[in-house]
Amino acid sequence: MNVIQRGKAKPFRTVEFDERANAVRLIDQRLLPHRFEVVAMPTHRETAAAIRDMVVRGAGAIGATAAFGLAQGAREFRGRGLAAFERHVERVFLHLKEARPTAVDPVNAMTGVRQQMAAGTSVAEQQSLAVEAARAFAEEDVRHCREIGEHGAPLIREGMRVLTHCNAGWLAFVDVGTATAPLYAAQAAGRKFHVYCDETRPRCQGASLTAWELHQQGIAHSVIADNAAGHLMQRGEVDLVIVGSDRVLGRTGEVANKIGTYTKAVLAKRHRIPFYVAIPLSTIDWELTDGMQIPIEERSPEEVLGAWGLDADGRRTRVQVANPGSPARNPGFDVTPAELITGIITPVGILPPRHLWRNRERLV
Amino acid sequence: MNVIQRGKAKPFRTVEFDERANAVRLIDQRLLPHRFEVVAMPTHRETAAAIRDMVVRGAGAIGATAAFGLAQGAREFRGRGLAAFERHVERVFLHLKEARPTAVDPVNAMTGVRQQMAAGTSVAEQQSLAVEAARAFAEEDVRHCREIGEHGAPLIREGMRVLTHCNAGWLAFVDVGTATAPLYAAQAAGRKFHVYCDETRPRCQGASLTAWELHQQGIAHSVIADNAAGHLMQRGEVDLVIVGSDRVLGRTGEVANKIGTYTKAVLAKRHRIPFYVAIPLSTIDWELTDGMQIPIEERSPEEVLGAWGLDADGRRTRVQVANPGSPARNPGFDVTPAELITGIITPVGILPPRHLWRNRERLV
Repeated sequence: MNVIQRGKAKPFRTVEFDERANAVRLIDQRLLPHRFEVVAMPTHRETAAAIRDMVVRGAGAIGATAAFGLAQGAREFRGRGLAAFERHVERVFLHLKEARPTAVDPVNAMTGVRQQMAAGTSVAEQQSLAVEAARAFAEEDVRHCREIGEHGAPLIREGMRVLTHCNAGWLAFVDVGTATAPLYAAQAAGRKFHVYCDETRPRCQGASLTAWELHQQGIAHSVIADNAAGHLMQRGEVDLVIVGSDRVLGRTGEVANKIGTYTKAVLAKRHRIPFYVAIPLSTIDWELTDGMQIPIEERSPEEVLGAWGLDADGRRTRVQVANPGSPARNPGFDVTPAELITGIITPVGILPPRHLWRNRERLV
Repeated sequence: MNVIQRGKAKPFRTVEFDERANAVRLIDQRLLPHRFEVVAMPTHRETAAAIRDMVVRGAGAIGATAAFGLAQGAREFRGRGLAAFERHVERVFLHLKEARPTAVDPVNAMTGVRQQMAAGTSVAEQQSLAVEAARAFAEEDVRHCREIGEHGAPLIREGMRVLTHCNAGWLAFVDVGTATAPLYAAQAAGRKFHVYCDETRPRCQGASLTAWELHQQGIAHSVIADNAAGHLMQRGEVDLVIVGSDRVLGRTGEVANKIGTYTKAVLAKRHRIPFYVAIPLSTIDWELTDGMQIPIEERSPEEVLGAWGLDADGRRTRVQVANPGSPARNPGFDVTPAELITGIITPVGILPPRHLWRNRERLV
């Protein structure tokens, strides 16, 4: 892993491919918000390690990283025999897949790349098709996020106060993001507004990543404790909520997202504040029939019992906040029912959550 | 400030008075949950400094500390002239009052002590009455908390899962606490139950102080992120909520408490989970007619942007969690309307919040 850039973030994307060096370039998200570095992965094994070690995170971003990693690995093959090449590609595929075994996006992205490679009749042709397919995947990710932005931007009117939870920003995708896409589009249209970033304990992706993104983009924002959103809503200081999602059930309109999302939806409903969920189409699950079927990951208690950040000497440090000896519960996600959601912002338009199923032909 | 005890917490009280040494003894709450120390304040000026520097915090605890501090200061007077003595006591009063200028409990407690001193006809008699009055104040604080416990304990049935927010435990009073009093009484009655402690960002009094108390008392508990309570309620894993309060409006039944309390009350209402507020009578404000009149302190952004705890070397450290350069909003309290509250647990019984006014003669 080579550091190739430090300093200002834009115009970098979260994931890029350097065809000449056959290297995958990533923003090292483990260093944010305290340091910005773009790093280059010179082999597919290092790309897999970057996925495993959380250099890159977020559904769209790890999908694109795996797609580029597969193309990169395919181009590492020296030889002409198609059978040996296919065995090599299979090994690359499995190696990248194992980097994040529970994630579905890398597998879907790599399967798409392999399908397009199959049209090639030589190793060189298939290698070239792999790069083309991975690039197309990344471009489609960006295009879908831009379309989410176009559909969502009219929701954000001049002077509004918008609440968001966790990070569904461009760092979680190749660029633009989902929950952030309407914000960036409204900003591009010249509108001024203010964003409240829930800090999103225990991992604080809102305070660190979303606040960093908005700061980079020059959008007015404040970080708040997760406890403060209800009070701000009660005092009339929140006009709109937009969040992302890890899984939306196409049959019921239920939304799984970072722990705390459900709470914000309950509060928004009480205060009649519109609550939107922005997603790419790949987030829709057409199989499950009940949100209670969604497995809720119980994460390490250490996340709740402590906090990570920079100490006074600039060193990344974990501090133990809670009473030593006390246990913790740490559910990573929660499920918000359709009745609390005003609309799902997708690349093809905004739909009420219960209308996904009847529109499924447009959404796949 | 002299350290006089390290190690196990009980049978210590939060505030005690050593008459022979004329010293106020306090649990140094700044060191909790990582270290337990009882410290002695040998002069009223050091007692005032302890209030100012947050060695002691919590309504009942700072009231008793100020009451003992006044008696301590009165006993520092050398001489027999009552006029000079009264001027001295006035200076002690003002010095202790200025240690926490916005708090009402120290002033109320000290005013009570001075009223009882007035019955004395000599300096020595007044000094002795001051100690007696301060002791009576502290004993009354403990008795009221025990009464809250007796009234509240029947709410906690075998096997229940109880949620609490922030710290309204014995550390916030002389002993026993308010929100914790029913827990300790139910435990004494032999019942087993589980307590979820909201960590209570940004200052994390739930993760540090309440979890420490429950751990000391041997009550089963888990710390949770503030974001997790809604999910646990949705899954049927919370049976009861008990919190404390900084101010309850006697006319409307509205409850001001630590930021995040309102959110938990909204969630409890949605899930039909009983929501109780435990308070001593001194918490009731009979003047204000609308919760919106309660001033909500905007605290330092540094609390939201970072976290305090012990680093790996055991040093108390602040880490910057949020994006450097991002601002924060930090309202310290919120107001919960009466409609969300099942009952107010007081030393004289449990009352629906809207029945306080008609019972005001029993409650003053």
